[in-house]
Amino acid sequence: MIAFADRHAFLDALHALPVASHSARQAALARQAELTKPDGSLGRLEDIATFMAGWQDTPRPKLDRVQAIVFAGNHGVAARGVSAFPVEVTAQMVANYAAGGAAINVLARASGAELSVVPLDLEHPTGDITQEPAMDGQECLDALNTGAATVSANTQLLLVGEMGIGNTTPAAALCAASFGGDGARWCGRGTGVDDAGLSRKVTAVNAALALHGSSCADPFATLRRLGGREIAALAGAILAARLMRIPVLLDGFITCAAIAPLVAENTAFTQHCIAAHCSAEGGHAMLLDRFGLEPLLRLGLRLGEGSGAALALPLIRAALATHNEMATFTEAAVASRV
Amino acid sequence: MIAFADRHAFLDALHALPVASHSARQAALARQAELTKPDGSLGRLEDIATFMAGWQDTPRPKLDRVQAIVFAGNHGVAARGVSAFPVEVTAQMVANYAAGGAAINVLARASGAELSVVPLDLEHPTGDITQEPAMDGQECLDALNTGAATVSANTQLLLVGEMGIGNTTPAAALCAASFGGDGARWCGRGTGVDDAGLSRKVTAVNAALALHGSSCADPFATLRRLGGREIAALAGAILAARLMRIPVLLDGFITCAAIAPLVAENTAFTQHCIAAHCSAEGGHAMLLDRFGLEPLLRLGLRLGEGSGAALALPLIRAALATHNEMATFTEAAVASRV
Repeated sequence: MIAFADRHAFLDALHALPVASHSARQAALARQAELTKPDGSLGRLEDIATFMAGWQDTPRPKLDRVQAIVFAGNHGVAARGVSAFPVEVTAQMVANYAAGGAAINVLARASGAELSVVPLDLEHPTGDITQEPAMDGQECLDALNTGAATVSANTQLLLVGEMGIGNTTPAAALCAASFGGDGARWCGRGTGVDDAGLSRKVTAVNAALALHGSSCADPFATLRRLGGREIAALAGAILAARLMRIPVLLDGFITCAAIAPLVAENTAFTQHCIAAHCSAEGGHAMLLDRFGLEPLLRLGLRLGEGSGAALALPLIRAALATHNEMATFTEAAVASRV
Repeated sequence: MIAFADRHAFLDALHALPVASHSARQAALARQAELTKPDGSLGRLEDIATFMAGWQDTPRPKLDRVQAIVFAGNHGVAARGVSAFPVEVTAQMVANYAAGGAAINVLARASGAELSVVPLDLEHPTGDITQEPAMDGQECLDALNTGAATVSANTQLLLVGEMGIGNTTPAAALCAASFGGDGARWCGRGTGVDDAGLSRKVTAVNAALALHGSSCADPFATLRRLGGREIAALAGAILAARLMRIPVLLDGFITCAAIAPLVAENTAFTQHCIAAHCSAEGGHAMLLDRFGLEPLLRLGLRLGEGSGAALALPLIRAALATHNEMATFTEAAVASRV
């Protein structure tokens, strides 16, 4: 289990990232060339199979143990009227997850992912980022470590998502602090705010940037001042996965925004990540472009809670199934060329 | 079971297409609005659920019986050196399907589709379209009816694909005859021909268009002269599905080219179709644009054999699973708005 002793340990880890196995990836590439199909004809499925081989360090990667984790948090900035839903919905949706009635329950069941939902102190929203830091140092470290601790070492693929009324606002602030631009650039309609709500989001993000921008000297400071508990937990989980060489299927805008400060610090951070989808939230496409990740799906999703990641999981399964189960040209006695 | 008595019956059917149930679709839309998610936040999954409701004529569509059919045929024009593989590979791959070792076997198993492979007189390739019609009238009608007869009336979703060495060449000819343009516009590298092979394809298509173009007066004539047996079978199956109100998940370039003459005759023909993906073959994107269909996946596939359709099937399943299994706001006691 990964745990960060303090902010320095977290920052040090970000500069000592393990990489995928070159030899396992090469062996997987060699197998792909022998399967009964024209070279490259399975397109990105072939890339996924070799990617998974590299991170699992085996020529025949498997998906027997897939973990889906949804972190939930509440945000002081929600009081600024930045969401179409009341803050009570975060806890209500956590109850819905427990009862099995939410989209992520259905999609995790359908795709064979083991779902964990981790609420982080919902009764105590983080500080309103327009007025103060979201968290103090200990709260942020605790959230990072909660995220890291949730990842099992024997997981073969990690899916991550979140729930938190109002959290597209801190997410937009994290993007702006990490990659430049202002609230207008990074704010979208989230779960569906009207024009006035969007305007309040932009104002809130700009106020937060004015207050904290000059203090965001490293990824820890940025997450602590502008993020939230579920956001820091996402960052901790995705970093912990990397340290254990577990590949990660990223969900939507907030999940990606959670690692924006980490990517700004070290562009190699996303090497173990696959972008499940590109959401309807405009900032997501800009983030994926910064990350150098081409999303698997573009279906106009904007739900969060890991739903896009679970929706893309069958594509990863299909990539490994074809890789592992197809016959070779020799086995099937099929001519491989004119 | 659908059968066309003669070419007139086929053409008449194309002008008497049943449509989806409006009331079932409306009932499904009403249910979507009650589920525990922001309105529209599942993007295209919501569209798929209501589309399926309309065609299955029920507010709660199901996928217990999914049929995947691969038609295989051989082509006289293959002798013009238009493929990277020898013609023997068609029969070899049919044997591979029977043994369960091809991509479509793996993907159909993974996605829960019942696979049928239908070889059409592989020992007797169709006529070389640069020299003569691919088929006579009876051969074409037989192929259409073979396709139509393969579709079970109780199928809830039909997946269609094909195998036929050289068949991107007749497919390109069908596109050109249906929508204009020449060989250069519609030919791509198929399974992976080099520049010289691509040039031979363009030459072959242009020769076929010069010979047959003025005789392609209706979709039957176009399929007969420029198509092939597996191509006519695809057209027959997809039309038969429409007559039985069975929705269809289209595969790649050749599958779509098979219905190009039908769409050119009646643009409403694709209403019961979902485009599973857009392949790497350049003509496919142009066809889907003509069809008014936005593909679910863009993963650079170029394998055919129904592989893209089977790969997209889990997305359809996910759309129906969320539609049918999610809790409503009332059931879960979640607030639906501020």
